[in-house]
Amino acid sequence: MQKTVDNLFPSVRIVLIETSHPGNIGAAARAMKNMGLTRLVLVNPKDFPDDTAFRRAASAVDVVSSAIVVDTLDEAIAGCQLVLGTSARDRRIPWPMLEPRACGEKVVAEQAAGAEIAIIFGRESRGLKNEELQKCHFHINIPTGEAYSSLNLAMAVQVLCYEVLQASLAAKPEVSELEIDKREVDNWDMAYATSDSVEHLFQHLEETLVQVEFHDPENPRQLLTRLRRMFNRIRLDEMEVNILRGFLTSVNKLGRPQRRQESEGNNT
Amino acid sequence: MQKTVDNLFPSVRIVLIETSHPGNIGAAARAMKNMGLTRLVLVNPKDFPDDTAFRRAASAVDVVSSAIVVDTLDEAIAGCQLVLGTSARDRRIPWPMLEPRACGEKVVAEQAAGAEIAIIFGRESRGLKNEELQKCHFHINIPTGEAYSSLNLAMAVQVLCYEVLQASLAAKPEVSELEIDKREVDNWDMAYATSDSVEHLFQHLEETLVQVEFHDPENPRQLLTRLRRMFNRIRLDEMEVNILRGFLTSVNKLGRPQRRQESEGNNT
Repeated sequence: MQKTVDNLFPSVRIVLIETSHPGNIGAAARAMKNMGLTRLVLVNPKDFPDDTAFRRAASAVDVVSSAIVVDTLDEAIAGCQLVLGTSARDRRIPWPMLEPRACGEKVVAEQAAGAEIAIIFGRESRGLKNEELQKCHFHINIPTGEAYSSLNLAMAVQVLCYEVLQASLAAKPEVSELEIDKREVDNWDMAYATSDSVEHLFQHLEETLVQVEFHDPENPRQLLTRLRRMFNRIRLDEMEVNILRGFLTSVNKLGRPQRRQESEGNNT
Repeated sequence: MQKTVDNLFPSVRIVLIETSHPGNIGAAARAMKNMGLTRLVLVNPKDFPDDTAFRRAASAVDVVSSAIVVDTLDEAIAGCQLVLGTSARDRRIPWPMLEPRACGEKVVAEQAAGAEIAIIFGRESRGLKNEELQKCHFHINIPTGEAYSSLNLAMAVQVLCYEVLQASLAAKPEVSELEIDKREVDNWDMAYATSDSVEHLFQHLEETLVQVEFHDPENPRQLLTRLRRMFNRIRLDEMEVNILRGFLTSVNKLGRPQRRQESEGNNT
């Protein structure tokens, strides 16, 4: 159907969640291809496929045609070692943040180090939900003027893809956080864990917290959110996931607490 | 009609020439307002005013409503001391060029010096004509991938307005990684844990690993080293230390494993 695509970023997928307007899918695909990105993943899009998406894609119909449609965010980010989510600035529990420029640099450095990467964009109306944001290592906020902070979805895709290409074109990496990260990645003795294996760890951890009666699912408070944020700041490697799961399995073998004092409860 | 606009760039006008699709006018207006720009000048637009422009503008209808419509480029740039035109890279006669980032910096610096500034965008189909480009002090080229170099008009407006706002934000403090770190710390909701409370956590963790028989002090291997490295990759906050110690205490209450099978050992 189309000319060859230069796939500058074969390890980077752009993930759009529950997009309402197919025009935005097409416009996002065009923005991606303009900047050398081609891998589009759609989580449960409202109207897709749709003529409007193809029309707005202009010469990026190939990106729309090859988009992968999945039902859940977990499927969309399966196998990813770096997960970035776009977000408005104010969240109740602060999360590690990246500016768009630093995001571009990080994506380029981590792709060079062999990582699989996802950049996630939320719904036109409400962005990403908290549980989606909690799957991210970093949140990305695009600075705006005070009067109007809500960017169109495809525009946000454009800005971040632009920064990814800019970082890639930058003659040589600056000596900065980028350099430190790169060294860290290169020197590391283990591969970073994928998002799915980390998700399994979180499930195992949650079950174990319930088992030992430290966590009460009826009164969750912010316990799991805080633990997710903590482990996502760490960016676990494969060995660490194995160690933690081994520890949890050892705890699981102990069974539930003895009921000597029924009044003893959760001591968070 | 609408809330107050923060006009960060009162000396900067965005000029769109002979725009064919009114949707692009609306999308460009939204992109402008998102980035703190408000002055839109339309040279001989094809369909304007038009409902599509207002719809795509979303909450930037004020920018569309206050757009100035003129017949010629000369009227549009009257009074300007710096004129910048977007252009594809290859022109027969080379012209002084600016990258988008340098464009943003130049606009901010010249506005601060009192200049009146226009940034000109051409037709969706054919961009700017040679005689229009020759009225510019600099041409601006937005870098793209090889496969598809033609940005949507409103996307081009978005990228340049984004760079103008970025330059404006950067002009205030030096933006270094240090600064980002500092802001991140300032935004955090909990104080970082002290080294002694983290050390107590490690001791508690080690005791618990022995208790559940996941860790054998006679055969330590690298388990504790890996766990220390893992937690030290981030800076634990006080709440996180409390959560982890609370979990360990809950595990402690379970006691040691039942000795049904004496052969069952460490399964690191």
